[in-house]
Amino acid sequence: MAETTWHRQHIISLESFTPAEYETVIQTAESFRQVLSRRTKKVPALQGQVVTNLFFEPSTRTRSSFELAAKRLSADILNFAPGTSSLSKGETILDTAKTYLAMGTDLMVIRHQQAGVPLAIARELARLGAAVGVLNAGDGQHAHPSQALLDLFTLCTVLDAEAPSIHLLKGKKIVIVGDILHSRVARSNLWSLTACGASVHLVAPPTLLPAQFALPFQTAIAGSDQPRQVHLHATLPPALEGADFVMALRLQHERMTQHLLPSLREYHQQFGITRDRLAVCQPQVKLLHPGPTNRGVEISSDVMDDPALSLVSQQVTSGVAVRMALLYLMGTYHAA
Amino acid sequence: MAETTWHRQHIISLESFTPAEYETVIQTAESFRQVLSRRTKKVPALQGQVVTNLFFEPSTRTRSSFELAAKRLSADILNFAPGTSSLSKGETILDTAKTYLAMGTDLMVIRHQQAGVPLAIARELARLGAAVGVLNAGDGQHAHPSQALLDLFTLCTVLDAEAPSIHLLKGKKIVIVGDILHSRVARSNLWSLTACGASVHLVAPPTLLPAQFALPFQTAIAGSDQPRQVHLHATLPPALEGADFVMALRLQHERMTQHLLPSLREYHQQFGITRDRLAVCQPQVKLLHPGPTNRGVEISSDVMDDPALSLVSQQVTSGVAVRMALLYLMGTYHAA
Amino acid sequence: MAETTWHRQHIISLESFTPAEYETVIQTAESFRQVLSRRTKKVPALQGQVVTNLFFEPSTRTRSSFELAAKRLSADILNFAPGTSSLSKGETILDTAKTYLAMGTDLMVIRHQQAGVPLAIARELARLGAAVGVLNAGDGQHAHPSQALLDLFTLCTVLDAEAPSIHLLKGKKIVIVGDILHSRVARSNLWSLTACGASVHLVAPPTLLPAQFALPFQTAIAGSDQPRQVHLHATLPPALEGADFVMALRLQHERMTQHLLPSLREYHQQFGITRDRLAVCQPQVKLLHPGPTNRGVEISSDVMDDPALSLVSQQVTSGVAVRMALLYLMGTYHAA
Repeated sequence: MAETTWHRQHIISLESFTPAEYETVIQTAESFRQVLSRRTKKVPALQGQVVTNLFFEPSTRTRSSFELAAKRLSADILNFAPGTSSLSKGETILDTAKTYLAMGTDLMVIRHQQAGVPLAIARELARLGAAVGVLNAGDGQHAHPSQALLDLFTLCTVLDAEAPSIHLLKGKKIVIVGDILHSRVARSNLWSLTACGASVHLVAPPTLLPAQFALPFQTAIAGSDQPRQVHLHATLPPALEGADFVMALRLQHERMTQHLLPSLREYHQQFGITRDRLAVCQPQVKLLHPGPTNRGVEISSDVMDDPALSLVSQQVTSGVAVRMALLYLMGTYHAA
Repeated sequence: MAETTWHRQHIISLESFTPAEYETVIQTAESFRQVLSRRTKKVPALQGQVVTNLFFEPSTRTRSSFELAAKRLSADILNFAPGTSSLSKGETILDTAKTYLAMGTDLMVIRHQQAGVPLAIARELARLGAAVGVLNAGDGQHAHPSQALLDLFTLCTVLDAEAPSIHLLKGKKIVIVGDILHSRVARSNLWSLTACGASVHLVAPPTLLPAQFALPFQTAIAGSDQPRQVHLHATLPPALEGADFVMALRLQHERMTQHLLPSLREYHQQFGITRDRLAVCQPQVKLLHPGPTNRGVEISSDVMDDPALSLVSQQVTSGVAVRMALLYLMGTYHAA
Repeated sequence: MAETTWHRQHIISLESFTPAEYETVIQTAESFRQVLSRRTKKVPALQGQVVTNLFFEPSTRTRSSFELAAKRLSADILNFAPGTSSLSKGETILDTAKTYLAMGTDLMVIRHQQAGVPLAIARELARLGAAVGVLNAGDGQHAHPSQALLDLFTLCTVLDAEAPSIHLLKGKKIVIVGDILHSRVARSNLWSLTACGASVHLVAPPTLLPAQFALPFQTAIAGSDQPRQVHLHATLPPALEGADFVMALRLQHERMTQHLLPSLREYHQQFGITRDRLAVCQPQVKLLHPGPTNRGVEISSDVMDDPALSLVSQQVTSGVAVRMALLYLMGTYHAA
């Protein structure tokens, strides 16, 4: 592991990430990807450190990914299980976090159904002078930075497997389609992809993509005076025209009951990714999806299963390397 | 650990296991049993490897046994928890398995309430060219190979604690009593016990043991031209006559509501194992039960608690050694 | 770690603990507290040993604390999850314990909603000649020894951070306020605090503190002929007069529906700990609470959050060191 400078105690949102920071994450993840290709996939970087998963919103996939990342850094892991927790006994979320801090937690990975909880916990712990780092693993519709960073790493490694770098993204056309309005994945990807110079095209029915949605992103890239490139579309064909990458978002079933969407079948007809629709993209176009997927809704099954098109499995694999990188970088801050 | 040749990537069923393969499992388990008798009970065999428990059907006992086996081989473990999983979000079982594969799983231990799921997953992963090994930890009424192999190891060590071997089983009379029809434990034990030369006697009320049940087992032992010896009984006394071992199966309460059984009390009167009933067996007769037991239904409490009669605890202890052996052997295939 | 003599295979209750035993726990915990202040917080004391958490009553906080203690002693951990367990399949508690014993458990940490379960399991395992140690992690309203021992350790380290010892407690006035009658924490603390020479003052509404409550504690300190000092109060002010430490107990909401208490607001007015009320205590008075707390009920939020007053976080931190000490000491018995 090369020496790296890292200046963030917490990773809550990507809004203020600079291109240099993204590049540090990508290069650190790349070195862990090489570790993971060895038969013995462990490094002692966080030996004796405690990583606590505070998942107030249940998740198997993301929790497992963080758990494996922490194990491969030789950390000890505590899992907070909401079902059997003190929360039902009236304890506040901040008191739960403080309890795990007092036990000796060094890094806290937090998921909560409400936006702002990881930040509130990070602030409270900072107020107490705690050296712990907080990593947002998804909060409401706000942010999911580790997902966007693993997407970024996946794109970089696809563009150049030998020398992945954010510079490869410059000028690429990336389409994000689906329930943009309610998606923390879309928001975090907007910050990272635009900061790396990609042109991001959002597509959704108007109920899921109001015109004012893009306003917060019409700002300069952090640490630069370059504008971010974001474009909105109400239909799929013009968005897909010449696209380098297409990211389909997961459709929450409850959107239908909220009358924001017609039926799943109609959604698929208008916004589902099929082989035919991808014909107008670049020849090397690839598809991403944060998972879990509703086959036949967001993506047709044959696109999902075509290794020449789908990056879904690669995203999961990238997830472990990127989360190792984030825990490692936060650990170096902590130790400094 | 002696060098062993092992040719199976997956362990789904015992149907095609040869006597030589059973002997390899027994000898490997025996060497791990010696490891487990030391104060420090770990070996580095699977250091850095990931064993994922995909238990779609909940289980504490079997999952703990696999978890401990994996830990003692120094593997990292991921547990998939069905309650809080992506399945409720509409993801398919195959996609769940592929997600854990993409995270870096080397060995997958799978339990599912439906027969055929572990095989379907193994086939799909093979189609993708994955080097992962799949171990069936119980699928519907089909198979539970690790249970049958730990039963086999228990019998071999009882017959000769110093030099356990499948050859000791030749000509032994082994009775299996209970809900044969719905039992994956019975089916897997039928393949293994008959292949090792034992004579297996099945006993159950006719609703739980139809005449055609034994047909699939009226075949030659795999890798040999010897027939398998299976006998059916409708009442307990003739089956127990001269028996060397008696295995009682767990009675599922739902069998009563399906009108396949009279009351629990009547079941115990006709098919429950008591000290009196065992009088017609061999003097050294021993009792097995896969657990968890319904005391006073399948077995009387005093038989269950008599260390001279009951092998129930020894089966649990054997389970850890045998599961270490299976994970180890699959790991050697993987590495080869 | 200095050589220590320890003569208990199990820790079920503190009733018979002698001052010398408490001192051994404190000194062992102190040496682990020093380990925990290092960056690498692990010792190999229980390498290869298996610690099983049998938590029939769900708990996140206590289970996490034991889990981390066991991990830092390098043990392997098995967690029994009641929800998905064999208990729903009709297995007895003793059979569940025996199953985990047979798997190779060395130390069993047991929590159960009914008093007496850990003792019953310890007796059954002893009857079987098992070398396993049982640690009661809370049984009904009976006992919670590790909580009382971490409270004791917290008090000793507050009194002298450099040289904690039970002798520092001699003559201190310690107030316990709240639902005394139903509290296993209060009972265990009564044994330990009185044995170390503190004077314990209990305060509660009469429905939660009947006159005969103190009878069992009007006995000599174990291994001595000194009486235990216990005093009862029906109102807070006289109890708090000159107090060195105040321990507020958690109020179970179900007490209200049982008509043992008026409203939460009235409870707080009469028995809640506020900054004003603490004015009659010693100037250095400190507050303890076993957690999770109902802020604004048992304690006002500003007292809870004042590091000059509240020991709540320190109690959690002490918990890991004390549980390491208990598992370590039981392990040395085991090895002897």
